[in-house]
Amino acid sequence: MDQHTLDLPLYEALAGRITALVDDGVLRPGMRTASVRTFAAQHGVSLTTALQAYRLLEDRGVLEARPKSGFYVTHRPHRQRALPTASQPPQRATPVAVSNPVFSVLAYAGDPSYAPLGCALPSAGLLAAERLDRHLARCARVHGRAYNVYANPHGDAELRAQISARGLRLGHAVSPDGILITNGCTEALNIALSVTCKPGDTVAIESPTYFGLLQVLEARGLRALELPTDPASGIDVASLDKALGMRRVAACLLASSFNNPLGTRTDDARKAAIIRVLTRHGVPLIEDDIYGDISFGDDRPRPFAAIGPKADIILCSSFSKTIAPGYRIGWLAANRRHDEILAAKFALSLSGAALPQKAMADFLKSGGYDAHLRRIRKLFADNIDRMRRTVDRSFPKETRMTDPKGGFVLWLELPPEFDADALYTRAIRERICFVPGGLFTATSAYRNCLRLSCSHDWDARIERSVERLGELAHELLA
Amino acid sequence: MDQHTLDLPLYEALAGRITALVDDGVLRPGMRTASVRTFAAQHGVSLTTALQAYRLLEDRGVLEARPKSGFYVTHRPHRQRALPTASQPPQRATPVAVSNPVFSVLAYAGDPSYAPLGCALPSAGLLAAERLDRHLARCARVHGRAYNVYANPHGDAELRAQISARGLRLGHAVSPDGILITNGCTEALNIALSVTCKPGDTVAIESPTYFGLLQVLEARGLRALELPTDPASGIDVASLDKALGMRRVAACLLASSFNNPLGTRTDDARKAAIIRVLTRHGVPLIEDDIYGDISFGDDRPRPFAAIGPKADIILCSSFSKTIAPGYRIGWLAANRRHDEILAAKFALSLSGAALPQKAMADFLKSGGYDAHLRRIRKLFADNIDRMRRTVDRSFPKETRMTDPKGGFVLWLELPPEFDADALYTRAIRERICFVPGGLFTATSAYRNCLRLSCSHDWDARIERSVERLGELAHELLA
Repeated sequence: MDQHTLDLPLYEALAGRITALVDDGVLRPGMRTASVRTFAAQHGVSLTTALQAYRLLEDRGVLEARPKSGFYVTHRPHRQRALPTASQPPQRATPVAVSNPVFSVLAYAGDPSYAPLGCALPSAGLLAAERLDRHLARCARVHGRAYNVYANPHGDAELRAQISARGLRLGHAVSPDGILITNGCTEALNIALSVTCKPGDTVAIESPTYFGLLQVLEARGLRALELPTDPASGIDVASLDKALGMRRVAACLLASSFNNPLGTRTDDARKAAIIRVLTRHGVPLIEDDIYGDISFGDDRPRPFAAIGPKADIILCSSFSKTIAPGYRIGWLAANRRHDEILAAKFALSLSGAALPQKAMADFLKSGGYDAHLRRIRKLFADNIDRMRRTVDRSFPKETRMTDPKGGFVLWLELPPEFDADALYTRAIRERICFVPGGLFTATSAYRNCLRLSCSHDWDARIERSVERLGELAHELLA
Repeated sequence: MDQHTLDLPLYEALAGRITALVDDGVLRPGMRTASVRTFAAQHGVSLTTALQAYRLLEDRGVLEARPKSGFYVTHRPHRQRALPTASQPPQRATPVAVSNPVFSVLAYAGDPSYAPLGCALPSAGLLAAERLDRHLARCARVHGRAYNVYANPHGDAELRAQISARGLRLGHAVSPDGILITNGCTEALNIALSVTCKPGDTVAIESPTYFGLLQVLEARGLRALELPTDPASGIDVASLDKALGMRRVAACLLASSFNNPLGTRTDDARKAAIIRVLTRHGVPLIEDDIYGDISFGDDRPRPFAAIGPKADIILCSSFSKTIAPGYRIGWLAANRRHDEILAAKFALSLSGAALPQKAMADFLKSGGYDAHLRRIRKLFADNIDRMRRTVDRSFPKETRMTDPKGGFVLWLELPPEFDADALYTRAIRERICFVPGGLFTATSAYRNCLRLSCSHDWDARIERSVERLGELAHELLA
């Protein structure tokens, strides 16, 4: 058992292992489990402990006791929870001030002594980037001297060629010269905003939206205009059209797909409609495609840039969510504004670290990234599924939750009177971290919502933490 | 002979080698050289070629022919060129628009087919960072998984501890928590400016000043107030005081020492006086210490932050000029504004690449950086000395030049009617790159000035290129 499991009472840890076997389909509904006596012997525990584990699983609805027969895996109906309601943010531009509360959450989110439901960052073990690291080691040994110069401000040429080739497979035709390597997606967004907006301008965004993006708007002195957003389909096109007709909006910034926190997949037809509206109003689109490669479906969604190749679109992305958060390699792809973009990059940080870029180029070139993506897509889909089941059986019945089509975060909406900040305070005391909903907006909305991250290997501690959040939510609503 | 030398006529290449022996002190003034016949035999060349080489050296004043005796190394009086005049920029804040011309110069500066007098970047061979690269290779192999996360936004803790310890040796007491690792010094300057200024504000700077800094001001929508600056001693304190009394200045941004392009060393007394003036006017100081470690003297100058430990000072620096331009590791150190600085870093790029930071920390911890600094200080001092001698014998007699006390750039001032842009156009045609003076100001000054970079291994091609610039300058002034 790993360290986290050891922190739990023994019977809970055992119960967690049985639940995992059920979730994995090894133990199927209707199957009879080992008897309590056999189970105790198998695991070298007392009869009492074995019985405690089974009773707990009975309480949780995983097993059912049949008189004189033993314990059976239940036919659990996977209750279809309602999706969160479509958002209706106030239709005015709002100054952004989220940084202070965000930092207090991030301090806990990065602390491994807290259950990791806060930070939307895959655990390093799960990403298994050893092959990439070996490329870096080789590059440092072999190319150290050649690369100890300021890189081309555009970034490594081979890396840009690889990214261009990957884009082409999605129908996104951008030449290597149209790509700029950045210090992660955050710098890409900064550059995209710097060439489209000036301080005081308004940027139209999804609502709820990633708090890090709100911090970027705050730092750049930009105002946020939050758009009505449906967890099933994305932003409302008619509302966008109306909003752009009423005020000057300098740019529209949307997730390409699987937005954080909703995990929404916007279909191609709606994407095309959004591009038409933006083009008619002369508003550039900045799209954040950082979760695009983590699609649970058979196909990976196309970015806006592939759907509207002639529109004024700047695509921002990175390798941080899929393979290498520690490498800080992002990029930006644009079909115009090249000179401004280069000047902005130059003024922000000249160029990026050369050897990590070269290593990433070698890694992509050597193949294997797609196999890696297939592996983590399945992994994150499984994690989301387990998280949804655990929420389903643990949270108050009025709880709505998203049904993400990609990425690794889940968004819960509780009744309006629910106070997610109060839940947060109690959870932190019990060493459980998550992100309360209020951080995902510049308005006062989503105080009854929360985001759970499913980006770590599923284990008993995570399962128990989600259950505990459910118990606390029950108490707070009582 | 290396490739560059092979591009020259044989007698010129031979003359260059003799000059190098003289410059290196192997051939000392008054020494008799080998006879023409012996020299020809030694180098396997014809008598004619040997004589041509000696005659060229005679023309250049390196050798003198004594009748019936042979050739002797001259007692060359190292003519003391006058320093450039102290600058007197117009005392008004100027919007900055330098990016376009800068980019056209940088395109040539990074092209190895041009003689490298443009880019102020040490050649990778000269920096010999192999030990650092080996640390990176080891880190990637050993620590890949542990470091494949978003680094602490402050940066690697061990690296900050190492930087803090180095600061302390200079009398600059800043705790590791007061240090923030950045993507090079450029990002550090952006962060420092973002927490002290808002768009439209005025920043007081040296004049002339580094064009990259002007680009940062331009990108941030800041105005430049250029201060009268003496190549011998730095900015004029009385002028600073007067300027700050006349208008609101949001920040003052100065090189700690060895400013680019003047190479000035500002003494401690003047630094203290500058801090007093700034404190009295409530203006924060941002200091750029990027050349501080490349001091030609016995001691390394103390940054402003060491001289005024209680003043509102943000120190920015990096390892880019001394060991690792390709690693893009800079930092800033501040004794206040921590929360704003962290928020600004977070909004700009979250954190830096983790493994290069860890490698740099291991490299510093393992010792040897100081030995490396001693080596490159001597190397750059020698390069500057050779460049000054070559300018001295090649450029029009009215040419003034700096006498840098550190760094690796030289600044020339020609008569007012001289057109450095015209020289640039002709030089580029002959594959020689340098930076014309007009790029070092937001005003219309310094059109008669130029900056020569001495950051590459000295060779015959560089020497010949400087001589050629001198010839062209003669022609342009004729």
